[in-house]
Amino acid sequence: MTASAEIPESMRCSVLRTAGELEVQQRAVPRPGPREVLVRVHAVGTCGSDVHYFRHGRIGSFVVRAPLVLGHEPAGRIVAVGPSVDPARIDERVSLEPGVPCRRCRHCHTGAYNLCPDVVFFATPPADGAFAEYVTIADDFAHPVPEHVSDDAAALLEPLSVALWAHRKAGTGAGSRVLVAGAGPIGLLVAQVAAVQGASEILVSDPDPGRREAARANGATAVLDPTADDPSSTDVDAFLDCSGASPAVLAGLAAVRPGGRAVLVGMGADEMTLPVAALQSREITLTGTFRYAGTWPTAVRLAASGAVDLDRLVTGHVDLDHVADALEPDLAQVKVVVRP
Amino acid sequence: MTASAEIPESMRCSVLRTAGELEVQQRAVPRPGPREVLVRVHAVGTCGSDVHYFRHGRIGSFVVRAPLVLGHEPAGRIVAVGPSVDPARIDERVSLEPGVPCRRCRHCHTGAYNLCPDVVFFATPPADGAFAEYVTIADDFAHPVPEHVSDDAAALLEPLSVALWAHRKAGTGAGSRVLVAGAGPIGLLVAQVAAVQGASEILVSDPDPGRREAARANGATAVLDPTADDPSSTDVDAFLDCSGASPAVLAGLAAVRPGGRAVLVGMGADEMTLPVAALQSREITLTGTFRYAGTWPTAVRLAASGAVDLDRLVTGHVDLDHVADALEPDLAQVKVVVRP
Amino acid sequence: MTASAEIPESMRCSVLRTAGELEVQQRAVPRPGPREVLVRVHAVGTCGSDVHYFRHGRIGSFVVRAPLVLGHEPAGRIVAVGPSVDPARIDERVSLEPGVPCRRCRHCHTGAYNLCPDVVFFATPPADGAFAEYVTIADDFAHPVPEHVSDDAAALLEPLSVALWAHRKAGTGAGSRVLVAGAGPIGLLVAQVAAVQGASEILVSDPDPGRREAARANGATAVLDPTADDPSSTDVDAFLDCSGASPAVLAGLAAVRPGGRAVLVGMGADEMTLPVAALQSREITLTGTFRYAGTWPTAVRLAASGAVDLDRLVTGHVDLDHVADALEPDLAQVKVVVRP
Amino acid sequence: MTASAEIPESMRCSVLRTAGELEVQQRAVPRPGPREVLVRVHAVGTCGSDVHYFRHGRIGSFVVRAPLVLGHEPAGRIVAVGPSVDPARIDERVSLEPGVPCRRCRHCHTGAYNLCPDVVFFATPPADGAFAEYVTIADDFAHPVPEHVSDDAAALLEPLSVALWAHRKAGTGAGSRVLVAGAGPIGLLVAQVAAVQGASEILVSDPDPGRREAARANGATAVLDPTADDPSSTDVDAFLDCSGASPAVLAGLAAVRPGGRAVLVGMGADEMTLPVAALQSREITLTGTFRYAGTWPTAVRLAASGAVDLDRLVTGHVDLDHVADALEPDLAQVKVVVRP
Repeated sequence: MTASAEIPESMRCSVLRTAGELEVQQRAVPRPGPREVLVRVHAVGTCGSDVHYFRHGRIGSFVVRAPLVLGHEPAGRIVAVGPSVDPARIDERVSLEPGVPCRRCRHCHTGAYNLCPDVVFFATPPADGAFAEYVTIADDFAHPVPEHVSDDAAALLEPLSVALWAHRKAGTGAGSRVLVAGAGPIGLLVAQVAAVQGASEILVSDPDPGRREAARANGATAVLDPTADDPSSTDVDAFLDCSGASPAVLAGLAAVRPGGRAVLVGMGADEMTLPVAALQSREITLTGTFRYAGTWPTAVRLAASGAVDLDRLVTGHVDLDHVADALEPDLAQVKVVVRP
Repeated sequence: MTASAEIPESMRCSVLRTAGELEVQQRAVPRPGPREVLVRVHAVGTCGSDVHYFRHGRIGSFVVRAPLVLGHEPAGRIVAVGPSVDPARIDERVSLEPGVPCRRCRHCHTGAYNLCPDVVFFATPPADGAFAEYVTIADDFAHPVPEHVSDDAAALLEPLSVALWAHRKAGTGAGSRVLVAGAGPIGLLVAQVAAVQGASEILVSDPDPGRREAARANGATAVLDPTADDPSSTDVDAFLDCSGASPAVLAGLAAVRPGGRAVLVGMGADEMTLPVAALQSREITLTGTFRYAGTWPTAVRLAASGAVDLDRLVTGHVDLDHVADALEPDLAQVKVVVRP
Repeated sequence: MTASAEIPESMRCSVLRTAGELEVQQRAVPRPGPREVLVRVHAVGTCGSDVHYFRHGRIGSFVVRAPLVLGHEPAGRIVAVGPSVDPARIDERVSLEPGVPCRRCRHCHTGAYNLCPDVVFFATPPADGAFAEYVTIADDFAHPVPEHVSDDAAALLEPLSVALWAHRKAGTGAGSRVLVAGAGPIGLLVAQVAAVQGASEILVSDPDPGRREAARANGATAVLDPTADDPSSTDVDAFLDCSGASPAVLAGLAAVRPGGRAVLVGMGADEMTLPVAALQSREITLTGTFRYAGTWPTAVRLAASGAVDLDRLVTGHVDLDHVADALEPDLAQVKVVVRP
Repeated sequence: MTASAEIPESMRCSVLRTAGELEVQQRAVPRPGPREVLVRVHAVGTCGSDVHYFRHGRIGSFVVRAPLVLGHEPAGRIVAVGPSVDPARIDERVSLEPGVPCRRCRHCHTGAYNLCPDVVFFATPPADGAFAEYVTIADDFAHPVPEHVSDDAAALLEPLSVALWAHRKAGTGAGSRVLVAGAGPIGLLVAQVAAVQGASEILVSDPDPGRREAARANGATAVLDPTADDPSSTDVDAFLDCSGASPAVLAGLAAVRPGGRAVLVGMGADEMTLPVAALQSREITLTGTFRYAGTWPTAVRLAASGAVDLDRLVTGHVDLDHVADALEPDLAQVKVVVRP
């Protein structure tokens, strides 16, 4: 290991002991292995999956059986490098892509590494996350970020990647008409990316008036209240669900033009009753997204150029002692960032 | 109109008066309009939709309100041409693509003419079909067929087109592993096309032993009995449902590899309860097919080269007086052809 | 024909008698045929091909053998409709897509109607163009334009379509790095569309300082002087040549990253000596564009939303009596619009 | 290292000392590193690049500066595995994909690992090849092959991969019309793959009558003699050049239909003078191939199912002492296999 300065022996991290119980612990600072870097964490976005683990101790088949460090949207600065990594990278500001795949399976070989069954993903049992002062990661998953991009923005390249991936599946581009359901952090970024890509109509639907307001500030050309408006009278090229809510999905599918696409980004029920005959007769393509692959270079460029505004999403900060506060659902909050 | 020989004033055709009631009538032979051709019909395949109209008098929102000529898989010979059509086409053997689109809407402009809302489709109310001695059609939807392709095969380019279109959506190719549910005429042709494209594994699932046998003869590398075998332990690149049966669709979706595709070809229930969380986490792309677009040139070439064997599917013939016999569901029959 | 008001018997138009000789003539106002509209022309952009016909009397195999009306970027207002067109379209403001294809060939059937061998294209011998008070066109190639889009902008949807089509071939999108050679009207619009699509780097190369200045105003993030700068040290996802100049093409190809694309938009020499070994070892995809297909709906939306600024390109206007002035090459001019 | 039996200390290998000088040397048997396997080599195809290194001591910028083992089409049996590899793989028959990429660059991340600048490729200076009794390779680049596939066929999965990759670029499929220039081993496999994919017309052009004969046996539906026949009167969807000869490329480009594709597979001159105006007006897409990525799973399946016949290409065998004989150009030979 080559380091810029003395690295302490131990560090603080926020550990989920069991559902609802977070505790700050001292742990040994990890040492970077071959082709790994050690990163001093400056900012970590909180995400719905952190909230879910905190409240329920599990997400589907991923169960928190041992104490787990949450947090998978980290940014920071490289402070040491392991063997075979250029020491010139020390002091580099980086945004971490939080899932390191096996690099050897058919999915990794074909660029679909998000589908790698052996991926090691931050804050997904049994892998620890980034609500900690230091983390290690493979050197190529620590993406350099220019100095003028804030720590918060560097952390939020992760949800931006979710949005970029969703649009790749949706096939959107200049002049597209897009419907987005759900104006949480992902929905807002999906709206921002639609705007960046030159979409002509960006309709965002959310039952909460504050979130609809946020949607307008994030690129929506019009907003809808699903309790009052019926988006199915629209005619969009792509529908991107960021709500996970079955009624939103049904309304969205009805709004897609023949030959258009629907992308399910938000996680919801395991099953939904869908209008398959309509999907057939209108040849709608339906797919979902699972994380992302190869999005960071684009995400960095969009943040660096100012095309997207990630800082706008940040509505609060907490330190490691107050992570639990950030994991309480609060519609008034868009994105709370942990600063370890 | 320029004709090869004298065209009679009237002709015989089989007319559906109401559900279950077919009658042979004398009608005037139609005259080809500008850029149309008049075709002496030699063979017309019967299809599930003909059966459905015959039994129920409707398919979804398409209701038989006036007497209707069924039949939308016709082949024959051009006997006269309308204004602006080269008279040299007279005597040409042709396979008819039975839906003529408006040519002017956004779908027609972009090559997705199967989604044209103003398409005039044979045997779809209020447009008459081809269980008749003569029909007219736009000259470019009467596709020339070499002499060595039989009348039956020329007629069956229509279901072959359904299969080609399904594979285009499925993205199959050399080395693909494919699961097909349902070994009716469409499922068998989907299997044949999979074989033509070099698919390495072609699994066909059908509860009927006779149909499984037919599947083997049409390219299946293995057959499954869904009442006994579980295809979900397989791992295919593409699933093509030709059954319309919800359990088959669910089993098929479970068999698709991450990143693979599922294509719903068979018509079934309007709604199905689908495992959306699994579609998301495995990023499966689900779509349906509605007819076809631009498939005839390929279909003609595959039939002409012998790559596909369409005559093999024909299990019987009837004349215009016995169309009703051909529209009785009979598992022992694959494809009955009407010879007007 | 149904008309809004009295249509005059005759009209003025600018006719190219032979290379270098333009003359204003009186001609009969054309009558719209079935499914055609009659348009009072308000604005027609002038284009390099008009300049070329004016100077040389030919472009490649297209030779002006009979007097020809030039102009193929027209906009105006529908004043009459032919049979089978909804009279409600009278008074509609429209931008004309100037090439009407046969609708029946394999290219038209598959959405590649720009490749139709039987297209009738404005101002391409023997078809007359739009430097005239009135023109007729197929109803679906007269695209409605909102009132707040200017006549000039409506006319310039044609070159905007060229730029959109080029980007479709180039596969550009959010975060792309793009090199554009040539800052004439097409190059500037290619730069604008790159910006609309969220490209992160938009390098524009042109030897003329004024045009480089214009490039900056049209979305370029950096400009290059090919006589001094070497773009081949860059690393772009796509290169779009709008210069037709062989040195620019060679420099651009050298700048494309492995796996990237190069699109030849500008017309130049019939042949070029290209570095094929480099294209192979870097798997660069090279293609060219010929007009466009299916771009107007997008072009209208981008102009209507203000995403692109077409009026900015207009540097002068002339009437029918001064068309020749508009066809003299003048680097200081970007786009001169004829107002008949 | 875990091994099946005792591995000898040293082995024989054929070493190129300088252009034209091959020598059999004793070298230490390499030891598999972490995640590597040791393979007893059974068969290695010889390829044009081996011939080129043998005769000229270089290929472009790749210069043989130190003694080099040639051979990059190896197959054999795993006899030992390095750390972190499942010992159950010992005794597995494998075909080796001869280029192991860095797995960390943008190309590797997006599935285009053939473009990885840090790839280590067999028999490309300074990396040794496989004309040796033993080689090591990353475990995931040793692809399992069923017992019924011969050693020769397992070796020839490499040129088969070249052909598969070429067709992927060419977009060929069922019903395609294809022109192949050059009936050497690659051209023959390109023809075979075209046939596997259901191409309807497979025209192969070669000036040598024996090779044209071979083309017929490998799937060509017609053969052309470029010294007598003019393929440009044809109309194909895709042209795949496997000759590297400029006249063949020009004739091939002229044969491609508007909207079709041309793929340069064969290496020839660094530069060619190409008809760019024709590429533009017909919107032909031109690209080249550099090796392959992700093709082995498909190649294995096609060889295992018998869809392709690789043994048919083998016209001779040599042992390590006679490698030079196999590297003398001989039109009568298609593929000579080295059996170490």
